[in-house]
Amino acid sequence: MIVCRTKDELRTHVKQFRRDRQTVGFVPTMGYLHEGHASLLREAKANNDIAVLSIFVNPMQFGPNEDLDRYPRDEERDLALANECGIDIVFLPAVDEMYPKRPLTSVTVSGVTSRLCGASRPGHFDGVGLVVSKLFHLVQPDRAYFGMKDAQQVAVIQQMVEDLDFDLEIVPCPTVREPDGLALSSRNVYLSADHRQQAVVLSQALRMANDWLKEPDITAGALLDKAVKHIEGAKDADIDYVELLQFPSLEPLDPTVKMGKLDSTVIMAMAVKFGSTRLIDNSLYQPSRGE
Amino acid sequence: MIVCRTKDELRTHVKQFRRDRQTVGFVPTMGYLHEGHASLLREAKANNDIAVLSIFVNPMQFGPNEDLDRYPRDEERDLALANECGIDIVFLPAVDEMYPKRPLTSVTVSGVTSRLCGASRPGHFDGVGLVVSKLFHLVQPDRAYFGMKDAQQVAVIQQMVEDLDFDLEIVPCPTVREPDGLALSSRNVYLSADHRQQAVVLSQALRMANDWLKEPDITAGALLDKAVKHIEGAKDADIDYVELLQFPSLEPLDPTVKMGKLDSTVIMAMAVKFGSTRLIDNSLYQPSRGE
Repeated sequence: MIVCRTKDELRTHVKQFRRDRQTVGFVPTMGYLHEGHASLLREAKANNDIAVLSIFVNPMQFGPNEDLDRYPRDEERDLALANECGIDIVFLPAVDEMYPKRPLTSVTVSGVTSRLCGASRPGHFDGVGLVVSKLFHLVQPDRAYFGMKDAQQVAVIQQMVEDLDFDLEIVPCPTVREPDGLALSSRNVYLSADHRQQAVVLSQALRMANDWLKEPDITAGALLDKAVKHIEGAKDADIDYVELLQFPSLEPLDPTVKMGKLDSTVIMAMAVKFGSTRLIDNSLYQPSRGE
Repeated sequence: MIVCRTKDELRTHVKQFRRDRQTVGFVPTMGYLHEGHASLLREAKANNDIAVLSIFVNPMQFGPNEDLDRYPRDEERDLALANECGIDIVFLPAVDEMYPKRPLTSVTVSGVTSRLCGASRPGHFDGVGLVVSKLFHLVQPDRAYFGMKDAQQVAVIQQMVEDLDFDLEIVPCPTVREPDGLALSSRNVYLSADHRQQAVVLSQALRMANDWLKEPDITAGALLDKAVKHIEGAKDADIDYVELLQFPSLEPLDPTVKMGKLDSTVIMAMAVKFGSTRLIDNSLYQPSRGE
């Protein structure tokens, strides 16, 4: 496994792979890898000749009052996990390497960013668009793998790839969960034992929605109310948003619409704080198929 | 010479060139090619295995009251000239091929776009950033060639390439001029015979600035005044802007600064209308070297 800390080193290896006509699978991350990341790494390695992992805590996608400074890091453990998953190249740049000067260029996706984390974290997806564009140009992957836990991120990046004609395929991968349902996240380490227990309400609400959807006349509004009520059952849950939207356009649903009448995919997405730790989770539904 | 009208056709050929390890030189244009374009095409062919020309009148870079509808076109003549210059592939997409849906992604460069055409044509460089990003992803060139007549465009694209880590080199090429000095432009065909004669004041002012710069204590403000005065000598000249800026940052100069004291490159850039035809021109100077 090769570890590159500069763009030049990375480019040299990428050129070699291109010359050898090897396909490249790419997993961009902010490190502190967990089993969710590992599933992406294995997918990338299984379906490409070469698998590239980037680890970069991108300051441009954090707001001024967010958790950039305390974002967890563990380079040694990350490299060991990458190695186990058969990763060929790890790109591990310092902030100055990625941004030697303040960038004057912005890559902004409108529409799909107007709700959910796009609304509650202003500028977040501009930072994502910028760093992902840079990484795509550096790595030149055939396929890039993203976890569906950040469903809006997947929608934003797919929109960007389509609009800008990037020559690559975005591969969304299922969310990996703890046995009790909690979605894996690098931020879970912040949770107190009590909050960790309470946090299970997110995935419970998402799973229970499958049953609620079987009620013949349930509306979007009623479904959402049930989910909110369940989450509020956890005493420290501080809801940032719980929304039911069309997917992947992320356009709102009329709250009076009967779920059984919908023939398109919908997403229930939520961001909930426990203490100072903000967790997100989501699930997709095909209401008319009763799934 | 291969003519591609779809992205898929183009991508197939580009993949083949990449597989054969051939270097690709790229000249993006809006067609109605003149000798200025031809100089770029020859440069692209001379320095790369494969030369690609795109012809696309990009609606996204025209403002609502600009000349999109009457922008001149002559596909047959363009293809003949491309063939003469040894071009291997011409990419000639329809608007619906480039923009099958309204794009939600924007690529915006700040700073270098705040003056000159960036100020007088709002949104223009956003349209340029978008289409050039798309074309770079489609063509995947090693080198892309741009004429210095659009000096601000060169500065904007260089900034974008640097900020987004595009893996290619921008090659700026000198402006090609008529024998009397008028910079070649597809828009020159709009000029009446009278305006065509008057339009020579732009290049005259730029050339005369070389002499004015020899005056030992001339200030930036005085130099600019002389240029403006010369242009105003043409009775129908309607000045949009005449500016003296640092290059390539395009930051303003203090008008009281003595030109002989400057050790960096400066640009004099101008946009002047004759009737409904807007012409641009510019020249770079290294004042301390007395050039």
